[in-house]
Amino acid sequence: MTTESHGRRRHHAEEALPSRREDTRFEASQSFHHAPFLAIEAQTSHHDLLALKWPAPPRNILCIRKDDDDQVHSALLEYITHIKRDYPETNLIFEPYLAKQLHKIFDFPIYTVSEDDSNVPYHEKADLTTTLGGDGTILHAASLFATATSVPPMLSFSMGTLGFLGEWKFKDYKRAFREVYVSGHPSPLPERIGNEVTDGGSGPRVTTDASAWANIKGKSMGASRSSRVLMRNRLRIGIFDSDGNRLPHEPPFAHANNKCEDIFALNEVLLHRGALPHLAHITILIGTPPHQRILTTAIADGFLVSTPTGSTAYSLSSGGCIVHPLVSSLLLTPICPRSLSFRPVVLPANTPVTLRIEAENRGKEIEVSVDGVRRKEGLKAGMEVRVVGEEVRTPGAPGARDWMGGVPSIVRSGGAADGEDHWVGGLNGLLKFNYPFGEDG
Amino acid sequence: MTTESHGRRRHHAEEALPSRREDTRFEASQSFHHAPFLAIEAQTSHHDLLALKWPAPPRNILCIRKDDDDQVHSALLEYITHIKRDYPETNLIFEPYLAKQLHKIFDFPIYTVSEDDSNVPYHEKADLTTTLGGDGTILHAASLFATATSVPPMLSFSMGTLGFLGEWKFKDYKRAFREVYVSGHPSPLPERIGNEVTDGGSGPRVTTDASAWANIKGKSMGASRSSRVLMRNRLRIGIFDSDGNRLPHEPPFAHANNKCEDIFALNEVLLHRGALPHLAHITILIGTPPHQRILTTAIADGFLVSTPTGSTAYSLSSGGCIVHPLVSSLLLTPICPRSLSFRPVVLPANTPVTLRIEAENRGKEIEVSVDGVRRKEGLKAGMEVRVVGEEVRTPGAPGARDWMGGVPSIVRSGGAADGEDHWVGGLNGLLKFNYPFGEDG
Amino acid sequence: MTTESHGRRRHHAEEALPSRREDTRFEASQSFHHAPFLAIEAQTSHHDLLALKWPAPPRNILCIRKDDDDQVHSALLEYITHIKRDYPETNLIFEPYLAKQLHKIFDFPIYTVSEDDSNVPYHEKADLTTTLGGDGTILHAASLFATATSVPPMLSFSMGTLGFLGEWKFKDYKRAFREVYVSGHPSPLPERIGNEVTDGGSGPRVTTDASAWANIKGKSMGASRSSRVLMRNRLRIGIFDSDGNRLPHEPPFAHANNKCEDIFALNEVLLHRGALPHLAHITILIGTPPHQRILTTAIADGFLVSTPTGSTAYSLSSGGCIVHPLVSSLLLTPICPRSLSFRPVVLPANTPVTLRIEAENRGKEIEVSVDGVRRKEGLKAGMEVRVVGEEVRTPGAPGARDWMGGVPSIVRSGGAADGEDHWVGGLNGLLKFNYPFGEDG
Amino acid sequence: MTTESHGRRRHHAEEALPSRREDTRFEASQSFHHAPFLAIEAQTSHHDLLALKWPAPPRNILCIRKDDDDQVHSALLEYITHIKRDYPETNLIFEPYLAKQLHKIFDFPIYTVSEDDSNVPYHEKADLTTTLGGDGTILHAASLFATATSVPPMLSFSMGTLGFLGEWKFKDYKRAFREVYVSGHPSPLPERIGNEVTDGGSGPRVTTDASAWANIKGKSMGASRSSRVLMRNRLRIGIFDSDGNRLPHEPPFAHANNKCEDIFALNEVLLHRGALPHLAHITILIGTPPHQRILTTAIADGFLVSTPTGSTAYSLSSGGCIVHPLVSSLLLTPICPRSLSFRPVVLPANTPVTLRIEAENRGKEIEVSVDGVRRKEGLKAGMEVRVVGEEVRTPGAPGARDWMGGVPSIVRSGGAADGEDHWVGGLNGLLKFNYPFGEDG
Repeated sequence: MTTESHGRRRHHAEEALPSRREDTRFEASQSFHHAPFLAIEAQTSHHDLLALKWPAPPRNILCIRKDDDDQVHSALLEYITHIKRDYPETNLIFEPYLAKQLHKIFDFPIYTVSEDDSNVPYHEKADLTTTLGGDGTILHAASLFATATSVPPMLSFSMGTLGFLGEWKFKDYKRAFREVYVSGHPSPLPERIGNEVTDGGSGPRVTTDASAWANIKGKSMGASRSSRVLMRNRLRIGIFDSDGNRLPHEPPFAHANNKCEDIFALNEVLLHRGALPHLAHITILIGTPPHQRILTTAIADGFLVSTPTGSTAYSLSSGGCIVHPLVSSLLLTPICPRSLSFRPVVLPANTPVTLRIEAENRGKEIEVSVDGVRRKEGLKAGMEVRVVGEEVRTPGAPGARDWMGGVPSIVRSGGAADGEDHWVGGLNGLLKFNYPFGEDG
Repeated sequence: MTTESHGRRRHHAEEALPSRREDTRFEASQSFHHAPFLAIEAQTSHHDLLALKWPAPPRNILCIRKDDDDQVHSALLEYITHIKRDYPETNLIFEPYLAKQLHKIFDFPIYTVSEDDSNVPYHEKADLTTTLGGDGTILHAASLFATATSVPPMLSFSMGTLGFLGEWKFKDYKRAFREVYVSGHPSPLPERIGNEVTDGGSGPRVTTDASAWANIKGKSMGASRSSRVLMRNRLRIGIFDSDGNRLPHEPPFAHANNKCEDIFALNEVLLHRGALPHLAHITILIGTPPHQRILTTAIADGFLVSTPTGSTAYSLSSGGCIVHPLVSSLLLTPICPRSLSFRPVVLPANTPVTLRIEAENRGKEIEVSVDGVRRKEGLKAGMEVRVVGEEVRTPGAPGARDWMGGVPSIVRSGGAADGEDHWVGGLNGLLKFNYPFGEDG
Repeated sequence: MTTESHGRRRHHAEEALPSRREDTRFEASQSFHHAPFLAIEAQTSHHDLLALKWPAPPRNILCIRKDDDDQVHSALLEYITHIKRDYPETNLIFEPYLAKQLHKIFDFPIYTVSEDDSNVPYHEKADLTTTLGGDGTILHAASLFATATSVPPMLSFSMGTLGFLGEWKFKDYKRAFREVYVSGHPSPLPERIGNEVTDGGSGPRVTTDASAWANIKGKSMGASRSSRVLMRNRLRIGIFDSDGNRLPHEPPFAHANNKCEDIFALNEVLLHRGALPHLAHITILIGTPPHQRILTTAIADGFLVSTPTGSTAYSLSSGGCIVHPLVSSLLLTPICPRSLSFRPVVLPANTPVTLRIEAENRGKEIEVSVDGVRRKEGLKAGMEVRVVGEEVRTPGAPGARDWMGGVPSIVRSGGAADGEDHWVGGLNGLLKFNYPFGEDG
Repeated sequence: MTTESHGRRRHHAEEALPSRREDTRFEASQSFHHAPFLAIEAQTSHHDLLALKWPAPPRNILCIRKDDDDQVHSALLEYITHIKRDYPETNLIFEPYLAKQLHKIFDFPIYTVSEDDSNVPYHEKADLTTTLGGDGTILHAASLFATATSVPPMLSFSMGTLGFLGEWKFKDYKRAFREVYVSGHPSPLPERIGNEVTDGGSGPRVTTDASAWANIKGKSMGASRSSRVLMRNRLRIGIFDSDGNRLPHEPPFAHANNKCEDIFALNEVLLHRGALPHLAHITILIGTPPHQRILTTAIADGFLVSTPTGSTAYSLSSGGCIVHPLVSSLLLTPICPRSLSFRPVVLPANTPVTLRIEAENRGKEIEVSVDGVRRKEGLKAGMEVRVVGEEVRTPGAPGARDWMGGVPSIVRSGGAADGEDHWVGGLNGLLKFNYPFGEDG
């Protein structure tokens, strides 16, 4: 990254891509849930959408799009043109293969990761990721941050059906981008979310300077609403050999440095028997030694540990239940277990879960996939996959960059689409949840 | 209550039952989950077992037993005899029907609720509840606090299979009671839980006086371990007519006063078609006006909203998944829905859920049951059951009585039974979870 | 029956309703399934649609309609007018409440069952039943023959969604009725079904006389195709007290005479705990003494024994699988069993199944419903419901009336709707079977 | 075959293995199900156990054992010794690898298939197959007849848990073998099954000669009971390319000649995505052109077509229901479908089912496995797997060999184990069917 794609390197070498904004905050917005409902006062909860607050406008925008779709590609060109015209101070970053294509079309700098230098990963540069496509595209974008503990906010657009992940319709991209861009912009009026005044928060104050947004073209800045962010928990995953030594991850999840050796999954980690129709024997342990305990041994085609975000993906196909992304939890879902009595289990997100390959697999390797990307090397008897929900620290934590963990997903807003609607909408529109059968009488 | 059962009133009228201890605390114990597991440091979480700290020994013990079981009754007599001999300063409270029996047997005061005076409910007097029986007995004990926002700790004994609810084997009752009784007793040594030193906590300090425990007979007091408490979330439930007016609850859930008009369920609230084989039409809304949204309309035999504790009860029979009691959540589970695509849903505990009876029920009433107790009067079209997880505030909150909400369940400890084991044990022992079928090869 | 509704009795007393046709046959049509598919010749099977053959035109038509639906009622009037005009020799029979209404409108005889004389049941008079409504209407019509071992063919029309039961769209009623009316009419050409010539059958020949159809108005009679009949198996049900004595059935299933003491269900028999939220204990036995064996004891909200026809009704809501009506079988489906390992079971139709109420129900009665009609008197401990699939004898059996058992359901035909399509159509249209979720990539 | 294993060829070349008995019959035994149960007479049904009738004692016994199990191997040696001593006229056949081992141990002829001459397959020589092991061993034995339309009876012994397949305990092998060996032996008394006299059957009579059994050592021959046979339906499977051309089967299912190009499965045929975590798109069609119709398109990990026998194998793990082996049917069960509304479907056994690979699989091949044996070459877009239940003709059919299709499985008998017990036993013992959870009260 930090360098543009090869073709433009000569012209723009002087324009080094600046670093990411350091002080972006997510503040607890006043609860949407807790208006007086029963007899008592509103509750306060950490289970909620957060309000995005840029210390200054986001500068570096990573743009990810779905492949092999002409309609999406055209939309991307329109989107890029708009961003650079209305927000000229932004820098646009793309994946290398796409940057190569785009620098032939546009005469402004097109940034990418240097293909022979992966030392500067996306998360050190991008202030904001925008995706254009569907849930699969969001999953791919998240995988670019699979080794990062701090992921920039993600704004997603869909050309088709709106999914579970809070996507905006692409046709609303101008409004959506503006709303995100100015989120946190100080205004003379108190900020409002929904109809409630947000409290100031109790964490360390971030200095924001309204003048930083002065260059936006178009409408004059009035009172703005903050973008709402759903902090999606991920799974932290490590793979260990039978002696307890950590195995390196394979590309694309390999780490460039050794600071952190775990990788993160937004949806799930899958263990599977693979092509041979034999059963996998996988023991599930919870807790850590010396308090580690065997939950059960799954004799099954495979086994899934999912996030709530992943509860509407593979886990659902395997019989798992639907878990709202704000329920801090892990899902354990077997795939075709040889048992009549293996019901899916939901554990607290902070439960350490170990999946141990048993000797009964008789030399056959077990396949591992993280968010749909299969590890080339399978697992042998005695190896372990260790999983725990990542730690998420949000408002009020000390330090310059006050969030940690999770994928900050900007959820669509406006009109009837406010609040939790994207999830209810996904349930009904995407899952065809609870279509009744028959006639009544 | 506050009065003894009738037969003994003459002898003991002078001994008014003192009030409940005011300053019992539940401190966050150091996490059992978070020993170094992957590459990073231990996480801190609110999702955990707590440590029970009495400011002074518990004084008033409410004893609940399973009915119609001679073995249980004999065990109760043995238990009572032991408590009064070794802990002579405790007062024993029973349900009225049982107090009548017992005061003929024992010559120490037997306390109860006055049958014609329900103004002083159990939760204003009991410091500790002990149950003798199974899960059904615990459920019954919890129902005695269905109108209380602050429930005393509950210590449960089982004569048979140990269930999900952390029961102790009755044969260990002496050790169990002692451990609970002295929990929080200040000792010269730092307190230990498991093998880790507990930190002091950051909340307001409670003054404890070791001399308050001086009268315990038996072993000298050395370093003691704190009892571990699982704070079980309940559901807060209100019933409203079609004009939005709250309906009074029926006995045994009727409120003696008007401070709080909701009732609480430890397991679930059930709506059901009842005896007539017609389908109920129930619309599920989430959120509160004006942000309330329709999730779906269930056309079904019935509908359940459950706590995680209730996930292994009726909800499980209806196809729900198994949710660990520390996952702060609500479960929505339909009963025999007329739909192929109605999968159980898990929502954040603080989600307000409204169940509205639809007109399509054609005059047939819908039955409502709370924790297995059916409301005599059914629900008509337009009526609503409103449910939300109760607010639980635990360590560090200001005020003299620093917990609120939840049923503090003392989980069994000792030997291999430490920590989460009671839940894994229940899963395997009680549910026969994941019994494999067939032979392998 | 045999008498008209009261208002018209004076005018038409001389016109006694003649008896039902005696010699209607259902011949095995050449298989639709067994065209060369793999390497071998077509198979012959009894599992198939049959061809309806009237010995002479059907004379007495029982007309059943859905209640409380103005659109359906108007359609009925149109239908009646058409039948009497184009097929003047037919007699129309209605349920008493409807006959009362209709005899005020029409000046031709309206037949019904005499309300104070149920000695002559529908099945002794009706040659053909036609229904106008949905699946519920068909179920009601079938219940009128719940005590009959020989049920006349049933032709069903739907105003709305076409269901599983082979209904015709009402707009096609003229073609449908004609096709049924002339089914079996001898013609100069060999009869054809689909494109194959039917074989002559090997049973006793029925004399058919083309002149019997001479009075049909409208188009001249050419070669006609036979209506196709799906013979739906029913359940034969008896209820017994704890001493093994048969209990009488309640209205509407009570028998007028004692020839047969069982009743028949088209969909299912349901045992259920009813309104009280306690579990029913029901032991399932299969076979007959001395070869009777305990399959299992269900501890559940209830238990269903269903026909394949009923597999898409209540059983489906309870988690049962979808069984094609030509699979000769019984389904055992528990309702909310207190077990993780109770999977639905499919047994051969001729398996005697006994459901025995256990003493653990503690005095609470278990509700019994047959095809959605609840028996007023519940079942006590020791009582048994005994169920077996009814015997169906179709082509080639000796005797004047050569079919026995089953509800002969005429399935819609024409255009793309031929053959099995009504079932596949119901699966997709009515059940919303296999609606995929998510996007692919 | 027809030759001994290599080492003994010199000694026994003169002893050519005679052909299989031609006239073995399976007669309908009087129903076990249909004793008077309700009000009516016993029904007659083809859905039943059959009675085995040898025209003369079985001569050629194929012995299959589980591999890699010393206990099983020792049992085999004991078994072989017994058979040759007490039934000296029998010839024992083994798989080649095993025959090589055994001819070093025994001095009587050990027959096998010649490894370089597969022209004479097992089913042309074996009168009876005996298996020693578990369900997997039975499945393997059945696979040796995967290209045969007429499979010899199979007698199975288990060293461990008795499964669903009617195995006998190995310790009863002497009684079991004798009962099978003399089944059909004419005796002075009328033959009896259970307590009922069998009728003579109406098919062509087979001449049996009591003297043929004269050489049996041991007990004198008295009245004998016939062995009971469960005729297990199989699936007939063909694989076709996108032009409709049949693809050859791979070893071990390749045909030595071209008489029949389909193969048979006792449990199931599986289509699966294999190792890559992408979804398979498979369209399910039922019927044959021009009456073929699309049932649905499965987007799933895989798809199963199973027999009732296979309903307790892979299909059960995938959520299928339990179907009794006497229900003449096919099961369609998806594996992890991307749909909330894909419920397993049971169709008549004679339904032609086509599974067509869709283009959406994007070049990825779909794996096919028959009874757990994976085809090396996967399936590409447009290819089809065509499946239909095999035709089973049993009693009374004309011709010298009067059964066709199915695997005649001899079910264990004696004591409490008579009749259907093996299936109920498997359900409870092997599947842990309906283990209740919780305590009641």
